Amino acid sequence: MFANIRIVLVGTTHPGNIGATARAMKNMGLEKLYLVQPKIFPHPEATARAAGADDILNKAIIVTNLNEALAGCKLIFGTSARERSLPVTVVNPRQAAIQALSILSDSKFSENIAFVFGQERMGLTNDELLSCNYHIFIPAVENFSSLNLAASVQIITYELYMAHVETLPPTSQNHYESLASAENLELFYQYLQQVLITIEFLQPNNPRYLMRRLRRLFNRAKLEEREVNILRGILAMVQKKIEE
Amino acid sequence: MFANIRIVLVGTTHPGNIGATARAMKNMGLEKLYLVQPKIFPHPEATARAAGADDILNKAIIVTNLNEALAGCKLIFGTSARERSLPVTVVNPRQAAIQALSILSDSKFSENIAFVFGQERMGLTNDELLSCNYHIFIPAVENFSSLNLAASVQIITYELYMAHVETLPPTSQNHYESLASAENLELFYQYLQQVLITIEFLQPNNPRYLMRRLRRLFNRAKLEEREVNILRGILAMVQKKIEE
Repeated sequence: MFANIRIVLVGTTHPGNIGATARAMKNMGLEKLYLVQPKIFPHPEATARAAGADDILNKAIIVTNLNEALAGCKLIFGTSARERSLPVTVVNPRQAAIQALSILSDSKFSENIAFVFGQERMGLTNDELLSCNYHIFIPAVENFSSLNLAASVQIITYELYMAHVETLPPTSQNHYESLASAENLELFYQYLQQVLITIEFLQPNNPRYLMRRLRRLFNRAKLEEREVNILRGILAMVQKKIEE
Repeated sequence: MFANIRIVLVGTTHPGNIGATARAMKNMGLEKLYLVQPKIFPHPEATARAAGADDILNKAIIVTNLNEALAGCKLIFGTSARERSLPVTVVNPRQAAIQALSILSDSKFSENIAFVFGQERMGLTNDELLSCNYHIFIPAVENFSSLNLAASVQIITYELYMAHVETLPPTSQNHYESLASAENLELFYQYLQQVLITIEFLQPNNPRYLMRRLRRLFNRAKLEEREVNILRGILAMVQKKIEE
């Protein structure tokens, strides 16, 4: 499902964490696992904790340094439990997932995205973090903020899956529904403006600024014909209720 | 922090999962752990996986049945990996967390909230699930949908913490981008639904279909925080005008 997304574990100490990572990945539809110099792997503890995600362990790619794991990756997120004063943008897992999915949905993007996790005790080194475009900071209480490695992977893969589920194209039927015509869109915008003036949300003498923002918003959504009809139906009911 | 929230593990088989649960709880500011008939506890493996959350293990309350663990609880969420045909509302972890926090923020609520997790292999029994007000279903791929027990606890405690953090006023420090938070979006959708029912555009007993289409539409637009504020402003004016 997420064929262009890699999970990269660097210098993992406990084989159990590798297995638990594989399970978390498989639960959420990820399959590409890269291991940079794992201390002990393969190992029965990894297989046990994978609990059926053996295929991901078997396909795992073992490399000797982070650069090898990142070859072919255009967007790289590094996780960090500690606050660092590095000049890199910090995002939370939800923001990272939304960003990753919106880039994957761009048909011009054909490279890979990596999520990099450091060694259990120390995390990623500053040098490793500087190979990343973004740092992910998992919100946690201040005096106990270091999560288990596989738990961190679980949260990030869960957010990816949630972002995926929430942006799923509705149903196969809808692919055949036509986008709204420019004329219909324009009629909708004019109707919207008129109703917003009626409810005194817009100043009649200066509706421009807010209307521009609203047009931008709805244009981004690429409205379908049926959706425009729903929105116009809502406006009609608002007008009717106010006139009652 | 979440003094009124209990994590209840029923019939846990592996002590490691109890330790990992304690760590996940402490990471996210929870402290009340109830164990219903754990197979092996205490145990060095639990302490090892707790990785410093020993205080939560030491304070854990061991009981002989679920009812004892739920005494004093008014709102009970039960996790379930399998689809069951029980007449209980199913929510995802994010919805559960938002609901739990909104109830906790009600000053009239002085009882407790429980999140109940079943045995590793079998999950909660139907009888146990019927003691719950809501079922939580963690979204996952269909043919590999059973998460590790402690990983499930981690996701739910993470969502609680996220819901808590995102209802805090933003600080100048945060690097948050302009995208609306999931919580704010959810509040907007709830407000939208309420207004659409008021104007009689939605049938109050069956708002699902149209709300799903509208969510899909706005999700596609990837709303920014400011846009959500504009939309909520419009809804507020509609409501005001109708009440006038």
